[in-house]
Amino acid sequence: MSSNKKIRVGITQGDTNGIGLEVVLKTLATPEFTELCTPIVYSSNKIISYHRKANDLPYFQTNNIRYARDAREGNVNVLDLGGEEVKIELGEPSKQAGQAAFRSLEAAVSDLKNGQIDVLVTAPINKDNIQSEQFTFPGHTEYLEASLGDGGHALMTLCNPLLRVALVTNHMPIAKVPAAITTELVGERLRTFNASLQRDFGVERPRIAVLSLNPHAGENGLLGSEEETVIKPAIDAAYDERILAFGPYAADGFFGSGHYRQFDGVLAMYHDQGLASFKALAMNEGVNFTAGLPFVRTSPDHGTGYDIAGKNMANETSLRQAIYVAIDVYRNRKKYDEAHVNPLRKQYFERGKDNVVLDLTKDENDE
Amino acid sequence: MSSNKKIRVGITQGDTNGIGLEVVLKTLATPEFTELCTPIVYSSNKIISYHRKANDLPYFQTNNIRYARDAREGNVNVLDLGGEEVKIELGEPSKQAGQAAFRSLEAAVSDLKNGQIDVLVTAPINKDNIQSEQFTFPGHTEYLEASLGDGGHALMTLCNPLLRVALVTNHMPIAKVPAAITTELVGERLRTFNASLQRDFGVERPRIAVLSLNPHAGENGLLGSEEETVIKPAIDAAYDERILAFGPYAADGFFGSGHYRQFDGVLAMYHDQGLASFKALAMNEGVNFTAGLPFVRTSPDHGTGYDIAGKNMANETSLRQAIYVAIDVYRNRKKYDEAHVNPLRKQYFERGKDNVVLDLTKDENDE
Repeated sequence: MSSNKKIRVGITQGDTNGIGLEVVLKTLATPEFTELCTPIVYSSNKIISYHRKANDLPYFQTNNIRYARDAREGNVNVLDLGGEEVKIELGEPSKQAGQAAFRSLEAAVSDLKNGQIDVLVTAPINKDNIQSEQFTFPGHTEYLEASLGDGGHALMTLCNPLLRVALVTNHMPIAKVPAAITTELVGERLRTFNASLQRDFGVERPRIAVLSLNPHAGENGLLGSEEETVIKPAIDAAYDERILAFGPYAADGFFGSGHYRQFDGVLAMYHDQGLASFKALAMNEGVNFTAGLPFVRTSPDHGTGYDIAGKNMANETSLRQAIYVAIDVYRNRKKYDEAHVNPLRKQYFERGKDNVVLDLTKDENDE
Repeated sequence: MSSNKKIRVGITQGDTNGIGLEVVLKTLATPEFTELCTPIVYSSNKIISYHRKANDLPYFQTNNIRYARDAREGNVNVLDLGGEEVKIELGEPSKQAGQAAFRSLEAAVSDLKNGQIDVLVTAPINKDNIQSEQFTFPGHTEYLEASLGDGGHALMTLCNPLLRVALVTNHMPIAKVPAAITTELVGERLRTFNASLQRDFGVERPRIAVLSLNPHAGENGLLGSEEETVIKPAIDAAYDERILAFGPYAADGFFGSGHYRQFDGVLAMYHDQGLASFKALAMNEGVNFTAGLPFVRTSPDHGTGYDIAGKNMANETSLRQAIYVAIDVYRNRKKYDEAHVNPLRKQYFERGKDNVVLDLTKDENDE
């Protein structure tokens, strides 16, 4: 792709009976949007038209295509996957809605792999009704790790302009969380997160806070031992690899005191610990970004919103932000890769403490 | 106590090496405070004086007493428990600091039971170094349940003007949480919470939201089954007892969407789920209130703050709010008890749905 061409953003429709297409339509209704990027919505004219009418949204012109390669700059492109037969029941979880969501996701992922789109933005699915022989994952993140990954693990990361929270465990019952958290896994997450903060977010030396598993960071073993036996060793090992990891911090004090503002990223141990606090703070502006994949994928941080589907009540801010973040990350990666494609041997040493005298005659690899 | 007499607020000092006395002194330095209530600080002149100097706080006159009965209205009273021998090491967890914290707590609890003070406000302890033969509890809440309870269970409740969050499980390692959450326990918590919202907070018909244990409320069993097998039956049973309980709701969406604003109380399943989100939203104004006890006890929602002890950096807002809440709850209870001391037989029926025809000839007990 030449750097003059606009970034092609593939957008899935999500669950047919939810608020996905409502927020997509509200976002793309802004004419300026097509100056920023070339959006391609994976859905069908019929389904889109249904949502437009149900939510009483203003009409705007779209470019209807069969293949992503036909997408036109300056247009909102709709890639028609058919769907004349899909029965839409707003607010109801249905097998058909899950199938339509999957069809959209599958087509967009395929185009992403084939270079037909540059980044992927997914609208919310229902993790239950999307299940089928082809989709046996607890969520988007795990499916994309399997479909798009290069062997490494995907890292679910929530971000807004102030805060980035990544998760050691994702979509997992609480009863399984403690056993799933190992020193190796925390270490791997730290490496992925650190690399992502550098390459995807442009933070040269990221400072990462690690939360504790247990209340009060285990209170010296009184409220659990995993902090000492599992998490601290992972932090120490990461620090030895020059990753600036700190903690473990008790989650409540960490978010309550504003301590999170001193870090570039926060690694939470499980879903609700990281996400409930993040969303409480994010106020509609949260974006879910999947770090650790060779491709860029984001999504809004809300669900299908069945309770308000078809009522023109959904707020599109999070989806709009998701598109912005996808574009930012895509550009950051290009910039980072260009800067690192042919690295010179480092000519300076990172500054240590003030009282450390640097020996500049030593080779850096001797350290 | 005659209604003209000011409410006597017993305040413990908390951990000697933390920020407890700093926030106590900052709060009580406001002269108007003694017009609102009669504060009695359980500590010692020597320790208080040390903290005043270390934090460079302005001096104000105190009334130094040996017994709570000698407390004077219009004064900040300091009940001297000795402590000349206590070595203060600001920012360091020490056995001596734990012992001094316990001495203060024990004396205040005893006076509360004997009617020498009306309400108890506790400054933060270190849950580790306070452990001794006399204190074998994971926190204040559990100690007070054993010391002050009437057989019922204490319910840890965090509150600010917008939000009240109570916990099904308190200070417990995450690995033990799933097994601890039973239908019976959730039901008991709901009854305690409902009664507290009525009597302590003056909400006539409280609406209580119940959070789920697992991410996404278990997503129909895909991410855990406790929602269906444990939590929903408890909500249904509570509803049958005319408690307006709803849910279970996924914690992240619940806090992210502002849904919590539609409820008088939120019942979270475990410590970090409730507290990390609450504190993220509370912004220094959170108060910890122990519901379910025959006595009124509150505390600030922060910890010992060792990292900033003695630096005049601690914010006293939460402690000040804790005193306000204790006074409010004390007054609400008196009002409620006066209103319910001699109830008339109910002369009306609660309104049902619009289409329900009420049979006013029927006795209400037949329902």
